[in-house]
Amino acid sequence: MERGQTSAAGLPATARRTVVVGGHEFGREFVIIAGPCAVESEEQTLTTAREVKAAGAHLLRGGAFKPRTAPTSFQGLGHPALEILQKARAETGLPIVTEVMDARDIETVAATADLLQVGSRNMQNFTLLSELGRIDKPVLLKRGMSATLSEWLSAADYILSGGNERVILCERGIRTFETTTRNTLDLSIVPAAKELSPLPVIVDPSHATGRASLIRPMSLAAVAAGADGLLIEVHPDPANAASDAGQQITPEAFRALARDVRALVIHLRGEVREAGVA
Amino acid sequence: MERGQTSAAGLPATARRTVVVGGHEFGREFVIIAGPCAVESEEQTLTTAREVKAAGAHLLRGGAFKPRTAPTSFQGLGHPALEILQKARAETGLPIVTEVMDARDIETVAATADLLQVGSRNMQNFTLLSELGRIDKPVLLKRGMSATLSEWLSAADYILSGGNERVILCERGIRTFETTTRNTLDLSIVPAAKELSPLPVIVDPSHATGRASLIRPMSLAAVAAGADGLLIEVHPDPANAASDAGQQITPEAFRALARDVRALVIHLRGEVREAGVA
Amino acid sequence: MERGQTSAAGLPATARRTVVVGGHEFGREFVIIAGPCAVESEEQTLTTAREVKAAGAHLLRGGAFKPRTAPTSFQGLGHPALEILQKARAETGLPIVTEVMDARDIETVAATADLLQVGSRNMQNFTLLSELGRIDKPVLLKRGMSATLSEWLSAADYILSGGNERVILCERGIRTFETTTRNTLDLSIVPAAKELSPLPVIVDPSHATGRASLIRPMSLAAVAAGADGLLIEVHPDPANAASDAGQQITPEAFRALARDVRALVIHLRGEVREAGVA
Amino acid sequence: MERGQTSAAGLPATARRTVVVGGHEFGREFVIIAGPCAVESEEQTLTTAREVKAAGAHLLRGGAFKPRTAPTSFQGLGHPALEILQKARAETGLPIVTEVMDARDIETVAATADLLQVGSRNMQNFTLLSELGRIDKPVLLKRGMSATLSEWLSAADYILSGGNERVILCERGIRTFETTTRNTLDLSIVPAAKELSPLPVIVDPSHATGRASLIRPMSLAAVAAGADGLLIEVHPDPANAASDAGQQITPEAFRALARDVRALVIHLRGEVREAGVA
Repeated sequence: MERGQTSAAGLPATARRTVVVGGHEFGREFVIIAGPCAVESEEQTLTTAREVKAAGAHLLRGGAFKPRTAPTSFQGLGHPALEILQKARAETGLPIVTEVMDARDIETVAATADLLQVGSRNMQNFTLLSELGRIDKPVLLKRGMSATLSEWLSAADYILSGGNERVILCERGIRTFETTTRNTLDLSIVPAAKELSPLPVIVDPSHATGRASLIRPMSLAAVAAGADGLLIEVHPDPANAASDAGQQITPEAFRALARDVRALVIHLRGEVREAGVA
Repeated sequence: MERGQTSAAGLPATARRTVVVGGHEFGREFVIIAGPCAVESEEQTLTTAREVKAAGAHLLRGGAFKPRTAPTSFQGLGHPALEILQKARAETGLPIVTEVMDARDIETVAATADLLQVGSRNMQNFTLLSELGRIDKPVLLKRGMSATLSEWLSAADYILSGGNERVILCERGIRTFETTTRNTLDLSIVPAAKELSPLPVIVDPSHATGRASLIRPMSLAAVAAGADGLLIEVHPDPANAASDAGQQITPEAFRALARDVRALVIHLRGEVREAGVA
Repeated sequence: MERGQTSAAGLPATARRTVVVGGHEFGREFVIIAGPCAVESEEQTLTTAREVKAAGAHLLRGGAFKPRTAPTSFQGLGHPALEILQKARAETGLPIVTEVMDARDIETVAATADLLQVGSRNMQNFTLLSELGRIDKPVLLKRGMSATLSEWLSAADYILSGGNERVILCERGIRTFETTTRNTLDLSIVPAAKELSPLPVIVDPSHATGRASLIRPMSLAAVAAGADGLLIEVHPDPANAASDAGQQITPEAFRALARDVRALVIHLRGEVREAGVA
Repeated sequence: MERGQTSAAGLPATARRTVVVGGHEFGREFVIIAGPCAVESEEQTLTTAREVKAAGAHLLRGGAFKPRTAPTSFQGLGHPALEILQKARAETGLPIVTEVMDARDIETVAATADLLQVGSRNMQNFTLLSELGRIDKPVLLKRGMSATLSEWLSAADYILSGGNERVILCERGIRTFETTTRNTLDLSIVPAAKELSPLPVIVDPSHATGRASLIRPMSLAAVAAGADGLLIEVHPDPANAASDAGQQITPEAFRALARDVRALVIHLRGEVREAGVA
């Protein structure tokens, strides 16, 4: 445990950093990323892309390479999924967020992705992190499912110290004894991370809770906790999704949620402005 | 593990129950409880009571009997603290919340308290719970620090099944591997508890985080997650508090927080109203 | 967290303390406690008592008052169970271990018990601990299911500082994310506790694992880890037990286990003697 | 959570599999792996190799590529370390165990290693696992620090389903709230894993406890729990080790431990034989 170390980049946490992805500035604007857990087909992806765009999402997420616990589970469509994501961007203009699982795939995935995601299981894949430090593309670093804040920030330092300063942190729930939810969403890590690091921090309530009915309250709570954005799984037909069926919400539910998230951001920023707080 | 059981009281979770304490209706109004971790002196308690009253708190908390890990730690003033709390109520009109640790003290503590708190360490003190089921006084049941939702609701059932239906649940953080915060505040348990139980659920960000700087974001997040109230530790001079020095906030910080909590409640209720949601 | 405090009794951990119960000296002899989870009937208890006595158990355990998660679960026979335990002792000569859940029951339970058990859920029932510090009867203090070593030793200090120096610690598994076993048996806490405390430490593999098939390997592992004794649930007909059906073993399995535990203790003590270690 | 799945290799758990590494048969013989956390120099490695060989170790461990939490920590000597390990094998005859962190390094590391280790942080690096499934070299798969048994066995299935059936599991402690030890050694997972999988299971008490004083009791406990081998960190001068200083033991302590482990294995196998158990 090497706690309390200063960031490799040496920036004080108070000097907030912003990260621009496809014209959206994480850390200044509140950014909503939405889309299916996995790219299953062109139709499913384009339908979802149009819906979340209309609802106000800023970026489209969609898994091409899926890290799955068992080798017999659906592993994602792979390269064809990247082509589908490109079509979705061409049509909707939404920048793309997708996961890279292997250092050898960085170039290929980066050719499609506007923001490269490192998943929870790879938070300490130091080879992958180091190589992402050498590219010119922003990285979304998910917290490991049992990573301490210190370990998470150290993982970010592997990317930062390579020279890539465009890192966004994403809380996605930690592993505890509670079984009601898939993981336990640790919202207090959002302000705690901001005390120690200048990086933007967003929240993924979908993987954290594993339950569609909890996405709305946890999204609003993330906003109130000071998150800089949300990553929400949306599927046109959640019940028949190829993965994470229980936690994806419908485009309709997303639309109402995105509207209320925006209103809450405006409310809270007004409040902060009145109070004269930065 | 006996998960999924229905409440002893047999009420569907959707039929929300409200619990009135000193004129305030938990589950309908958003109720803010504030006050020092422990009653240390008449002056400290009365000063705090006046301050939190002026800031808009609805109830006054203050520990008379303190459950402490080590026998050599400050254990609370005991009975003299109850008299001080009575004076604070007489002067400010604030109803009193204080902990009862022993079934034999119920009568004495209930003579002062308007709301009897069962602490985290006693969540499965079944003797205490059973006897609280036989009295005519509302009970605030804190979640055990490693209790599942199912165990917490079962603990509530010990009180409910004795005939006392005025139970309020309080999330106060669970024990995880993360050491940045004292405990991990599990806000997703708020909506999850409401799916299974009709009882009001409030949140204690002070014990959950153990850090004064996190009280404000976690309080706002609790409101957004759907909590019915907050329990916040306030001390006129946190640095010199006899216990929990690191997590108590000043009356001034509380005033700003209470104002923003109220504004957020109004904002969110308006939003819900517009959306036509119940 | 008040870690690293010295024991209230002020003894260095290296000066091992022994605790005599009914002629058996914990901390010098290896002591095996066996018996049913709960006293269900005179026949069940006497049958088990005879069997475990014949197999070499030193003490008989049996629950009269059972702390149960839900109010509708079997709560134990209560006072009649104490009478049955007395009969079992009269017939077999086995000293009795049974749980006391309420400070008001201490006198009654102590009239039957030779060793009073404080259960996991009551490890921080400070009223109960303090009163047990004032009686002249040894106490078996189970570790709380999410208690740190420091908190466990502090709980013991509540008893020790009252003047009762006859305390035996019992590891019974902690709560983790792993669901294969009921709890996770933390055997490293046995030597770790002995580095900080002079008290004997025994192990309960039954509650720790919740699975009959794991009792044998975990019992032997506990011996090898340096435990001073074992607490094992034995039932003449585990499948039809009123509680903990999955983790109780048959008298036959217990007989083979007790034999192998004894042989292992002899083997390990011989090894230690040869090595010239204390 | 995909629990209870059958192994990709389809073998019933009861048909124990053995894995031969450099003439030693895991699953039939009890195999002791020892050596430094990291290869720091030729002298340090050769000294340790000679010592552990003399003490009866069967394989030599030594890290060439070290997964470290922070980018500024010592990352291992890399390729030169592999050459040093080859010299150690040439001189002592001890087969080599070393970690591979990156799929691109498999060929290089496999040219030196007799047993390729997958570390805890890479347990769900599915790319690495899949490629290890295609090579003709045994793999030591450490349990992830928050992996359930089901996830661990699924990770093994990634290797097995590729055609590489020579997989050995290694328990190395899980992450819990307890801070006395670095992790919590979960010995009950040893017999639990054997109920569900035919693979050999060994135990690493060094990383699990993080404390030299606990290595001996936990090693003996692992043997008693049914482990098929041990992985122990030994350093000629633990206090000045470049990593894991607190948990490495001296060659002298290792010698006494290896002797007692052998004696315990003989004792327990004799006991099992007498009892007529397989």
